[in-house]
Amino acid sequence: MTALEFPLGPGGEFDLIRAIADRLGARGAHLGDDCALIPAGEDTLVLSTDMSIEGVHFHRDWLSAEEIGWRAAMGALSDLGAAGASCVGLLAALSAPRSDPPGQLVDLMDGVGAAAAAVGGVVLGGDLAAAPFCTLAITVVGRTRRPMSRRGARPGDGIWVTGTLGGARAALAAWQAGRVPAESLRRAFVRPFARISAGQWLAAAGAHAMMDLSDGLAGDAHHLANASAVALELTLDQVPIGDGVKEEGDRLGRSAPELAAEGGEDYELLVALPPGFGSAEAERFRVACDLPLTRIGQVTEGRGVTMTLAGRVVTPSGFDHFRR
Amino acid sequence: MTALEFPLGPGGEFDLIRAIADRLGARGAHLGDDCALIPAGEDTLVLSTDMSIEGVHFHRDWLSAEEIGWRAAMGALSDLGAAGASCVGLLAALSAPRSDPPGQLVDLMDGVGAAAAAVGGVVLGGDLAAAPFCTLAITVVGRTRRPMSRRGARPGDGIWVTGTLGGARAALAAWQAGRVPAESLRRAFVRPFARISAGQWLAAAGAHAMMDLSDGLAGDAHHLANASAVALELTLDQVPIGDGVKEEGDRLGRSAPELAAEGGEDYELLVALPPGFGSAEAERFRVACDLPLTRIGQVTEGRGVTMTLAGRVVTPSGFDHFRR
Repeated sequence: MTALEFPLGPGGEFDLIRAIADRLGARGAHLGDDCALIPAGEDTLVLSTDMSIEGVHFHRDWLSAEEIGWRAAMGALSDLGAAGASCVGLLAALSAPRSDPPGQLVDLMDGVGAAAAAVGGVVLGGDLAAAPFCTLAITVVGRTRRPMSRRGARPGDGIWVTGTLGGARAALAAWQAGRVPAESLRRAFVRPFARISAGQWLAAAGAHAMMDLSDGLAGDAHHLANASAVALELTLDQVPIGDGVKEEGDRLGRSAPELAAEGGEDYELLVALPPGFGSAEAERFRVACDLPLTRIGQVTEGRGVTMTLAGRVVTPSGFDHFRR
Repeated sequence: MTALEFPLGPGGEFDLIRAIADRLGARGAHLGDDCALIPAGEDTLVLSTDMSIEGVHFHRDWLSAEEIGWRAAMGALSDLGAAGASCVGLLAALSAPRSDPPGQLVDLMDGVGAAAAAVGGVVLGGDLAAAPFCTLAITVVGRTRRPMSRRGARPGDGIWVTGTLGGARAALAAWQAGRVPAESLRRAFVRPFARISAGQWLAAAGAHAMMDLSDGLAGDAHHLANASAVALELTLDQVPIGDGVKEEGDRLGRSAPELAAEGGEDYELLVALPPGFGSAEAERFRVACDLPLTRIGQVTEGRGVTMTLAGRVVTPSGFDHFRR
């Protein structure tokens, strides 16, 4: 597998995935894709796994056990939205300190179960282990006739995004500064909602490529561009900004669009839609899915991502677990 | 779901799973089973997830990174053997300290990939995250026409076990005592082999119920008995003992059969086979799967597990993550 064919942008985490894929060779299949695909009769089953770790992805001071469970599950389920799949369910592998009250683990799994149920799935199974701190590994299972991926964007396509961005990042910034985030920001962080029905709607509407925004628009746009072997031109002025993000940006001395582009874990969908998809179709999406859909750029020939803000090129960066 | 119907024996970990299943209600499906089952055309896909945690399931002083990966993967793949399924592949969610040399994670995933390939599967996907210590959550995917489970053992069935037991437990005992385990014991701990082809053979031979021995015969026998709503009578004198286990037992002042019955992570199969399955069939199994198959007891009417050693009732116990 050559670097060019590998559907990921630059960064320590992605260099590592690339090194793993190289070592695995034929023993690995489509590593770096959002989802694994398994033929299932006329359907395809879509699988993805996601890890949430105490102190990295969440802090117990900030979230209740139920909220930790909900957020971890929705973050994982989000990949099914990007595949345009319906949700079958999920498996949850969970570690926690032996000293935790058992009720806390039950609350946490209550949040996981509520998230699965909210998108039409069930908890299919799991594993429990004692450990020095709390981790959740959630594996989601979806089903579709025609799985979507980040591959397939074509020059001329519009680049669109569901919902609003920046809320989770702004909440994190507030907590990290020792403040309590505004309620709208806290809600964005704590109660993400996997775009399962939105993903199915967009797939049926002829989307060419989709991915979920887990590492932030700035980083994830590179992944979509690389996977599709195209260039993206994004106008950050058009990025839909969550309530309260501007105020938090002002405190940090950052513009809201930059904060929104850097911010991970919004779990909205980034979609390449054909040129014929315009504002009338976006309005139909809004009515059907109760969610805004905003055009933020376009696909062109070439490679890489260009982001502009107020007419100037900017380079916000995504989140990377293994940046050194 | 009543306690009687719930297919797990007693213990803190299982009380916790039961409490979670109660809270989830209809949002959980068959929690406590070895595997989740998903219809896939004429086949059934079989999924299971397993967590391995540094300091709990492995120590880096004892195992190389490649060995940690192999062992975690085989421990998870073992559930597919119990289902009588073939292996499609696995997903690996992996956390490690940012300070780890990247080569170590690649070595670890090399072990995961080697294990998957050894049983006919591939690495289908994964996730990487930085964390204070190393954890692996492996989700395995198998395929079968007729999934087996721990439910279905009937009075009159023989209880059989593949391979030999006690090696992994004896290796652990040696390490914990600050000694280097004998090579045969180290190998049992480090290189378990998921009984995928054995499980398929036994399913085709008409097995009524199967499970893998991950928590130890003493604990797991209770799970099989509870799930099947039968009683098991096991004669520990007949348990096939791994090379070197007796010597380690002597050092600990424990009999080899008790050590073998308590020891988890042998990843052999515990099988209920119909009365007509005898030594001739076991010999055919040995030739086909290059593995011993030993009768260690029988299924009777009633509930619970009775274990005898040299004619006396004994009560060794299995491993429980959340024992208090």
